[in-house]
Amino acid sequence: MNGEAPRIILLAHGSSDQRWCRTFETLATPTLESVPGSRIAYMELAEPSLDTVISEGSSEGARQYTVVPLFLAAGRHLRKDVPAMIEELQSRYDVSITLAPPIGENPELGKAIRDVVIHELDSHKQPA
Amino acid sequence: MNGEAPRIILLAHGSSDQRWCRTFETLATPTLESVPGSRIAYMELAEPSLDTVISEGSSEGARQYTVVPLFLAAGRHLRKDVPAMIEELQSRYDVSITLAPPIGENPELGKAIRDVVIHELDSHKQPA
Repeated sequence: MNGEAPRIILLAHGSSDQRWCRTFETLATPTLESVPGSRIAYMELAEPSLDTVISEGSSEGARQYTVVPLFLAAGRHLRKDVPAMIEELQSRYDVSITLAPPIGENPELGKAIRDVVIHELDSHKQPA
Repeated sequence: MNGEAPRIILLAHGSSDQRWCRTFETLATPTLESVPGSRIAYMELAEPSLDTVISEGSSEGARQYTVVPLFLAAGRHLRKDVPAMIEELQSRYDVSITLAPPIGENPELGKAIRDVVIHELDSHKQPA
């Protein structure tokens, strides 16, 4: 591995429902604005696919990627399907792709959820 | 609506995979420790179900609930299945249940994801 910083790819499941994809694009926005070269990609049912993003990055010369799953927990997709996709893409584009844990396994998410709930409760309080 | 604070129920999808449920229980912990009376419930495939949690709360005299979905975006489950479950439970237990937006629609989550990604990048930096 060389000193090149990996490109971050935020991986969402994907859906044919555009509202669903819009929610993920909004969720990704603070990351995309803060991390140069970062992109969002979908596992299925929406574009850009992981293949599209790796293909475009590869043609720009990027060889290192870290895929951060926008999933709260790891199920079959993250244990089986995504590792298989990554293995195939590494071979096809001659790149190195690391799969990070799903965001929901990071303690920051639990704290953010607590803050959301406390805000939700405050919004239910009636004026005195 | 009276002045009673609603009981918070963190609703996860549920899975027969115990590792999946453990991740959600860990995610819920900061909320459960901070918000008195809050609980986690599963839509399907795991216990406690939403029915179990409302039934137990009802027997303790709690009449107001807010369900906060531990989902990143709203798909069919949150648009159709969960509202139908809530309607049926409100009638059966004579309680009032509010469905909050999924946590992923709150801007706090996007910022937490950014922090997770920046931490992930830092962990890849090689020592100078």
